[in-house]
Amino acid sequence: MKILIVIGDGMADRSADELGGKTPLQYAKMEFVNSVVKDSMVGLMDPIAPGIRPGSDTSHLSILGYDPFEVYTGRGPFEAAGLGMELKPGDIAFRCNFATADDKLIVKDRRAGRIKEGTQELVKEINGMEIEGVKFFVKPGVEHRAALVMRGGNLSPYVSDADPHKVGEKVKEVKPLRKDAEFTAKVLNEFLKRAREILSEHPINKERISRGLPPANILLPRGAGVVPELKSVEERYGIKAASVVGIPLVKGICRLAGMYCADLPTATGSYDTDYEGKIKKAVELLKNGYDLVLVNYKAPDLAGHDGDAEKKVWVLENIDRGLRHIEGEDILFIFTADHTTPCNFKDHTGDPVPILIHGEGLRKEGVEKFDEISVIKGSMRIRGRDIMNLALNYAGYAEMFGA
Amino acid sequence: MKILIVIGDGMADRSADELGGKTPLQYAKMEFVNSVVKDSMVGLMDPIAPGIRPGSDTSHLSILGYDPFEVYTGRGPFEAAGLGMELKPGDIAFRCNFATADDKLIVKDRRAGRIKEGTQELVKEINGMEIEGVKFFVKPGVEHRAALVMRGGNLSPYVSDADPHKVGEKVKEVKPLRKDAEFTAKVLNEFLKRAREILSEHPINKERISRGLPPANILLPRGAGVVPELKSVEERYGIKAASVVGIPLVKGICRLAGMYCADLPTATGSYDTDYEGKIKKAVELLKNGYDLVLVNYKAPDLAGHDGDAEKKVWVLENIDRGLRHIEGEDILFIFTADHTTPCNFKDHTGDPVPILIHGEGLRKEGVEKFDEISVIKGSMRIRGRDIMNLALNYAGYAEMFGA
Repeated sequence: MKILIVIGDGMADRSADELGGKTPLQYAKMEFVNSVVKDSMVGLMDPIAPGIRPGSDTSHLSILGYDPFEVYTGRGPFEAAGLGMELKPGDIAFRCNFATADDKLIVKDRRAGRIKEGTQELVKEINGMEIEGVKFFVKPGVEHRAALVMRGGNLSPYVSDADPHKVGEKVKEVKPLRKDAEFTAKVLNEFLKRAREILSEHPINKERISRGLPPANILLPRGAGVVPELKSVEERYGIKAASVVGIPLVKGICRLAGMYCADLPTATGSYDTDYEGKIKKAVELLKNGYDLVLVNYKAPDLAGHDGDAEKKVWVLENIDRGLRHIEGEDILFIFTADHTTPCNFKDHTGDPVPILIHGEGLRKEGVEKFDEISVIKGSMRIRGRDIMNLALNYAGYAEMFGA
Repeated sequence: MKILIVIGDGMADRSADELGGKTPLQYAKMEFVNSVVKDSMVGLMDPIAPGIRPGSDTSHLSILGYDPFEVYTGRGPFEAAGLGMELKPGDIAFRCNFATADDKLIVKDRRAGRIKEGTQELVKEINGMEIEGVKFFVKPGVEHRAALVMRGGNLSPYVSDADPHKVGEKVKEVKPLRKDAEFTAKVLNEFLKRAREILSEHPINKERISRGLPPANILLPRGAGVVPELKSVEERYGIKAASVVGIPLVKGICRLAGMYCADLPTATGSYDTDYEGKIKKAVELLKNGYDLVLVNYKAPDLAGHDGDAEKKVWVLENIDRGLRHIEGEDILFIFTADHTTPCNFKDHTGDPVPILIHGEGLRKEGVEKFDEISVIKGSMRIRGRDIMNLALNYAGYAEMFGA
């Protein structure tokens, strides 16, 4: 069997008053999911460990079989990989905003007016700059978003953010958080100063000012992390793996795990994503040489952060509609969440998430519904890091340990 | 939300014949607990690991998030801390009895007639004694109980007890249990000899003999342990923590964990404790600056050791009466046991214990009753060391790991 892992990002929830005390999953009409749940194995999963509040990054690392406590130092490397930057183990990477500051370095707009065009042009003179043996690479993403990578020398990820995270405050000097990060902080501050000088004088920014638009005259890096040396999914498990993912953060994780990232322009990483197209694409990849495909739907997490339980129900029903394209295929289907994003908490929590594993010829546990409460009657009580082994086992790829 | 953790010490049990095959928790009328259980998350917890028989000390260490296999070498340090002794990491501490021995060092009374008065006087000349660079501190507790602390030099906790644990046997010479404990055993034997000489000549003992009472003429240390370097709950989790505990052993653990120990004279650590006052006190602390309060009720464990299932039912119903003072408060309520003390075994066992987590806006699992058997229908299957992370997650204090 081929393996399809579908992650409803932040899909798990708590009992919601506006849904009569039900969770969105309990409330939603999940026709496809509830048509296969009886013939599935179900249960609860702690994405990292009981009570640990996962980020989408640390959780996806776990689900792909890595130990985030070992490989994760910050979000930067995964964002940078998500933008398609070439990374080497040991590189230090940051998320980065183009922003607007005045002469006294007071931040006027953290997003430079959500600048739409010209960022490729803006970074041309900055990208590749070298200071004391350290090379700096900047790659713009959507709107004001970018990633910054430092390579070479004796670098450390333990440096503070330049981003003050608030308009009206001064751009922060990057500080070393540990003694061995002093050099990193020093060259990064020097780079940011030179970049500021270049950006301030850039024709694109002069033109923005003349049009009354905030200039993208500073870079604000945050979320430093060191690029880990990840053994690829193929090396570790001997299978070819791909992903159908909208958001750069999770894309970056899949890329660093050596997975092919399908390019599906209609996968927006938002409410308006192509719910059906993502599964169609995944099934196509599984028919064309890939043994495992991971699909991430970001929308349920957005509804959780927005505190909108009814929207979450709508999103879940759309996902269910997408999942119908699995029908009739010889696929091991794993459906779960990377974490809980309760609509009444509006952020990730460390609650366990429901999980379902369905495939021909496996155990049928007879649980009637797929939601946070119903799956308690199922057999599983696992952690995120168990998924890959379970997938390989049930799909028939696992090697025997012993004889 | 504030966090209230209530530990029914040894509350969990096995099916008891005298209760018609029910456990005390199944049999007891737990009105408050069973009124909130439906809206709670429930399950079973292995205080340390499946099948491991916990002491109250190792279990409470686990529940507070420490690894007892790492920090626990013996009971002494926690008893000493429970008596309010100032301890430093590396100190070697013992529980200690004042006892009565004859000229040939045969133990005549392991408790010196449960001596009521004069122990403060008796230790005056002994406390602070120095031998070969090692200082000895003795602090009396209730009746014949005391703690002994050794400080300085190259000390080891791997020494045997002087206490023969039996009347009619000779006081034991302290033996090194490992090569590196030879010095510790030598100076401790020398200290015990000098203490014996001082105590034998002490006016209080001469007066006791004249009144026909057994003299407190020897010290019998046991339960050697090294004082661990514990990062406080506040340092580890960023919350202010307090406890309402009757017995010195658990008090000592809370103190070494940097928690405030409330002074509640009516909390006796016995059957006659102030069941309601303890919860009232805890609620008061939570309203006055503390984020987490741990309450320990010792009485269920006593009933277990006494093999008295009906008494245990009575104790549990009293605890339930105390718990009603939580009602209406904005509190994350965690109710569990530190271990099982089956009335038909009369000692701690390694069976899993029931646990309940209740708070506004969390998942409602719909389980109907709180007892060892009913909670199997709930979601949790955790270990003691998960509790702190779960508490922080559900109360909304947990930091996110990742982004």
